Amino acid sequence: MQTVGTSVPRLDAVDKVTGRATYTGDIQLPGMAYAKVLSSPLPHARITSINTAEARQLPGVTAVLTPDQLHDIDPYYGNTVKDRPILAIDKVRYQGEPVAAVVAVDERTAERAVNLIQATYEELPVAADIDAALAEDAPMLHASNICHEYHYDWGDAEAGFAESDHVFEDTFTFPMVYHYALEPHTAIAHYTPQGITVWTSAQHPFQVRAELARIFDIPLQRVQIIVPYVGGGFGSKSYTKIEPLAVCLSRAAGRPVRLALTVEEAFKTTRRHAARCTIKTGVMQDGTFVARHCRVDLDTGAYADNGPLVCQRAGDRIPGPYHFPHLRVDSYAVYTNTTPAGSFRSIGAPQAAWASESQVDMIAAALGMDPLALRLKNLVAKGEEVRRGMRPLDGSPVEGMQRAAEAIGWGEAQAQTPGVKRGKGLGCNVSNVGSVPSSTAIVRMHADGSLTVMVGTTEIGQGSRVVLAQVAAEVLGIPLERVQVVASDTSIVPYDRSTGSSRSTTLMGLAVQGAAQDVQAQLLELAAQHFNSRSEALEIRNGQVHHQNASVTFSSLIQEEFGRGAGELIGKGYVSPRRNDGQLMQSPVFWEIGIAAVEVEVDETTGVLRLPQYVSVADVGKAIHPQQCEGQDEGAVMQGIGHTRFEAMHYEAGHLLNPNLIDYRVPVFSDLPDHFHSMLIENEDGPGPFGAKGLGEGGIVAAAPAIANAIYQATGVRIKTLPLTPERVWRALRDR
Amino acid sequence: MQTVGTSVPRLDAVDKVTGRATYTGDIQLPGMAYAKVLSSPLPHARITSINTAEARQLPGVTAVLTPDQLHDIDPYYGNTVKDRPILAIDKVRYQGEPVAAVVAVDERTAERAVNLIQATYEELPVAADIDAALAEDAPMLHASNICHEYHYDWGDAEAGFAESDHVFEDTFTFPMVYHYALEPHTAIAHYTPQGITVWTSAQHPFQVRAELARIFDIPLQRVQIIVPYVGGGFGSKSYTKIEPLAVCLSRAAGRPVRLALTVEEAFKTTRRHAARCTIKTGVMQDGTFVARHCRVDLDTGAYADNGPLVCQRAGDRIPGPYHFPHLRVDSYAVYTNTTPAGSFRSIGAPQAAWASESQVDMIAAALGMDPLALRLKNLVAKGEEVRRGMRPLDGSPVEGMQRAAEAIGWGEAQAQTPGVKRGKGLGCNVSNVGSVPSSTAIVRMHADGSLTVMVGTTEIGQGSRVVLAQVAAEVLGIPLERVQVVASDTSIVPYDRSTGSSRSTTLMGLAVQGAAQDVQAQLLELAAQHFNSRSEALEIRNGQVHHQNASVTFSSLIQEEFGRGAGELIGKGYVSPRRNDGQLMQSPVFWEIGIAAVEVEVDETTGVLRLPQYVSVADVGKAIHPQQCEGQDEGAVMQGIGHTRFEAMHYEAGHLLNPNLIDYRVPVFSDLPDHFHSMLIENEDGPGPFGAKGLGEGGIVAAAPAIANAIYQATGVRIKTLPLTPERVWRALRDR
Repeated sequence: MQTVGTSVPRLDAVDKVTGRATYTGDIQLPGMAYAKVLSSPLPHARITSINTAEARQLPGVTAVLTPDQLHDIDPYYGNTVKDRPILAIDKVRYQGEPVAAVVAVDERTAERAVNLIQATYEELPVAADIDAALAEDAPMLHASNICHEYHYDWGDAEAGFAESDHVFEDTFTFPMVYHYALEPHTAIAHYTPQGITVWTSAQHPFQVRAELARIFDIPLQRVQIIVPYVGGGFGSKSYTKIEPLAVCLSRAAGRPVRLALTVEEAFKTTRRHAARCTIKTGVMQDGTFVARHCRVDLDTGAYADNGPLVCQRAGDRIPGPYHFPHLRVDSYAVYTNTTPAGSFRSIGAPQAAWASESQVDMIAAALGMDPLALRLKNLVAKGEEVRRGMRPLDGSPVEGMQRAAEAIGWGEAQAQTPGVKRGKGLGCNVSNVGSVPSSTAIVRMHADGSLTVMVGTTEIGQGSRVVLAQVAAEVLGIPLERVQVVASDTSIVPYDRSTGSSRSTTLMGLAVQGAAQDVQAQLLELAAQHFNSRSEALEIRNGQVHHQNASVTFSSLIQEEFGRGAGELIGKGYVSPRRNDGQLMQSPVFWEIGIAAVEVEVDETTGVLRLPQYVSVADVGKAIHPQQCEGQDEGAVMQGIGHTRFEAMHYEAGHLLNPNLIDYRVPVFSDLPDHFHSMLIENEDGPGPFGAKGLGEGGIVAAAPAIANAIYQATGVRIKTLPLTPERVWRALRDR
Repeated sequence: MQTVGTSVPRLDAVDKVTGRATYTGDIQLPGMAYAKVLSSPLPHARITSINTAEARQLPGVTAVLTPDQLHDIDPYYGNTVKDRPILAIDKVRYQGEPVAAVVAVDERTAERAVNLIQATYEELPVAADIDAALAEDAPMLHASNICHEYHYDWGDAEAGFAESDHVFEDTFTFPMVYHYALEPHTAIAHYTPQGITVWTSAQHPFQVRAELARIFDIPLQRVQIIVPYVGGGFGSKSYTKIEPLAVCLSRAAGRPVRLALTVEEAFKTTRRHAARCTIKTGVMQDGTFVARHCRVDLDTGAYADNGPLVCQRAGDRIPGPYHFPHLRVDSYAVYTNTTPAGSFRSIGAPQAAWASESQVDMIAAALGMDPLALRLKNLVAKGEEVRRGMRPLDGSPVEGMQRAAEAIGWGEAQAQTPGVKRGKGLGCNVSNVGSVPSSTAIVRMHADGSLTVMVGTTEIGQGSRVVLAQVAAEVLGIPLERVQVVASDTSIVPYDRSTGSSRSTTLMGLAVQGAAQDVQAQLLELAAQHFNSRSEALEIRNGQVHHQNASVTFSSLIQEEFGRGAGELIGKGYVSPRRNDGQLMQSPVFWEIGIAAVEVEVDETTGVLRLPQYVSVADVGKAIHPQQCEGQDEGAVMQGIGHTRFEAMHYEAGHLLNPNLIDYRVPVFSDLPDHFHSMLIENEDGPGPFGAKGLGEGGIVAAAPAIANAIYQATGVRIKTLPLTPERVWRALRDR
């Protein structure tokens, strides 16, 4: 292969290093006004009045929006449940919920006007966390505080526990964390009676389009969602966030309106679900897993957002990559008076793996077994079902686990220093990813044989453009510099379901491959005419079609068809994979396998951790762009280290205490591993183009249990609550 | 039909009446700088020095461009002959030719800097007009002053004259005229090493793309040409005009640069060819045409631009819509030291028709025949060859002529008032139009069944968007308000050859029709699966597919294929019509028939004309949007009245005297006909969608001879030189 498998320069590299890359916040429109939001100071309250008279009189104010102005549209939205109001209606359900908003000639005037709005509230009791929300006399956020529940089983878990030699039951808790993309949510909306245009930092523009078309009851083709470069998503910009509010503000103001959240406001858009998993596992004396039951409780915050799907995925991921003859999972998403929780890199998986992979090591310790051996004994093999009824495993966790263990020097003796304990830990997971698998693409070959690839994949930093260009270039044998990618404008690129769930390289990759093959087929048809030959006698090589000793360029073929300098070929690619029963395939499109092996140093005096070594193994099938694969994997691990070591959104009676970079601690360079190694497994066994699978999520999942397992190996202390802050580690050591 | 044939509101109507429509000049880019051009004050001179030192030192100046900075690119361009330098190299060939240019932070600074550039010249003798350029010792503009010549014949013209009862020979002259689009040429260019983006008021963005890719030697896909709304083209914005200069300025300045011409500068970009036609026609006593010979001399100005094609088309149009057993045409485009001449609404035709249709009436007068009868006797019938070797006539000039004559009350007595003479005149023409016939289109059907139509046709005021939307809506049976048109960005819409030559409704219409039919075929395939039926048993009606008594919506079919709310269907349409011999069809794609019948009042004291009645007949095959057809025809006639009555660019020794609206007289409302009637002939016999042919050019062609013929009928005075200003008419009356 010529370009696939090569770490060519990213298509957006120069734009980004020169600062020329345009983000939503860089866009200026003629007549654009600026919006600011009045948000609720209370976590749960009835709104008794909103007085905007003074705000409206402030010079420079062009519109003040209150919920009563939303009567002619559907004011509720949400990707699973339409429960989120554009502005709070009647009551507020979390601190930071938008109550009213102002549009003005500049941001400062808008802010001043927001401060002139007088809203009064009648406070309601607060369901601050899962326990409070599930209590018998809990204050109700919605008709029920159970947003969603998900149950499945196979075998008979109770019977399995009865057969087991040992049964382990433990409870693990996982904190609320925030994505902290560098770019807070930003949208510029322009509403006109003819249609809606929104520039927004969204990951799923076609879903934003559908949501707005529904809210305003207009056809899809009248809504245009344009996504410039996005400064990180990680799920925080999945589905629809601030766009409906921005559009309502533009409608009220009669001009384009920019709504750019502050970091504090962005903290109150969406977050990862806090979780409590009570996991019970029955094993035989030789370590064979027999049965598992888990109850997962997820804190889904004030509105559903993607909670129902997170609830399912967390449940699906409870068995991990292991054989269980008997399994039962009960997963709940629970409403609380906090920031709504939604998608975050590998939804539900870090929470599930934190419990299940920690417990695997606890079982090993109790049985006196090597944690690696215990895992290898129980791992599912390639081609076997990891989750009954779903696609069989398309990679080998055994291979990954062995390579990770070897790389970290598993079982080798470690130098011990007084006061500093060293240990190693493992973690492993397989995640059902790919989301809904519908993607489409257009590939256009111009009269000179150069290509334009049109895709709905958003560029959220992951480097999708170069990968998709590589796929098209490879199919047609064209140099990469002759390929351009046009992306992320719903009026001009064809449908894509979403950018997330590790899906773009695989699914949009297949769509691009299909579109390029469509162009190829048309070229062969033209060449068959040119050579007066059957197309089977033709071969495409180096941007030319060859027939016996003769050849013709793509460019010549197009110009023979359309005239000198004229014409182009248009190829389309549809991806909507089917299951064997003819139904549309649902998740997973493939299994993402991620393995972590880590060496940890624990300072016994302070509880501070250091990570001398970290090995991450990603089974990518085929690395279209190896450097970017490593970058994605590395980024996922670093974000995992964040929630493992430091990150937690702290609420006190429904008030978020740390919505800023000072109080919300993310990893800094000195927190990162001294030596990091990302290993890619490439068996070309993925369903994507050239055997690729997606990645970018696997690395985050097993970070926490691997580090906790290493702490245990180093100190004998088992911590079941994240994050593993120095204080928590120190207390655990003290209580040992 | 549901929408085709209906004068629905234009898609751009609200944008335009609310002022929201964006033209190139409305666009602001971050960091954009402004350019001004130093142009030659002399019509012909050697450049001896350009001193830019002072200009460069002016604060706010970011770049000064001189020809020596163009050494690393091809500095010459042109759509037929690459003879036009981006900046004059070594010598200037017309007054107003760009010599150097400045980029600065604002327009005023740029203008001040331009005034600080010192250029010195060595004057050369001037070839001010055709005669001067063809003189034996003429100053040479290029290797030869003959830019292009074109000859064809059939029969034997000399023998034909010998056979004829009468031979008439007359010379007619046609002035240089300027298009006077409301929007002068404007371009914003952004050059980066990764590629070029240009926003420009261009009619043919894909040709600008090809020209820039060639000049800068980069692949087509790295050049993006975006055409916002255009404030009128009429040919003045055909091919490539100021774009290469704008790109060079951006390259020099390292930022986006806006180059917006003033009206005076725009007068010096391109114009219509002045012409002298010496036409010799042999006829029998009964009026039968026997032979014709014509020598056409066209003043093509300083560079070729579209001169060679104009030279051919003028020649092609000399026989008019009449049978000639013997014909010879010799057509020449001659370089002179004036503004280069290029495309202008119906290239070459008004010049040819001015001569030929005036002479028809002179022949009728000489033979004592009715001019209508003489025409009807000699007109070519539908299905006959009007120009030997070309496509036969696809409409009936006889029908048009009869309807026009009837509508104007031909032959009816007219009240005569002392000092005011009244007369009627006819004019007729058929033009080979459609240009190079390659067009492509994409039609996307979204998950809710709404449509996006993607086309390269530029919206130059003609209303192309609604017509193309109507075609797609009609094919698929969808309401027009569910169709959106995305146009005129070479990176996102597929190839179109050009917008001009009356081609878009026919050729892009066919491409859109083909793309919509492609979607239709895909819907039928999905419906065949849905109903488990053969597609022949299915019928598409009202946005649904019907099978026996059941039906399914397009939206359901798409979502069955791609999942809930997901997916879209992508249809492509290619148009590259072939002749019977398999070669690409060349012009004409169809014959555009335009007929004029006019009533004129001549004030004998002042020479002032009034037009009580004007009937224009356009054979449109099928009017997709009747109101727009009438608007196009009306606009063409008004522009024809301009060159007939007032318009002429006046040069004195190579200096243009009247490049502004004060001195260059265009028609005002009081100059227009009291009663104007546009009649559309609809026999659904065109090659376009639903039997349509293009229009928009036919109306301009016969205006001048029809008016001159009416003056003759009113006064007995025959004028052979345009425009028919009051002074010229008065002098002719005086000399009668």
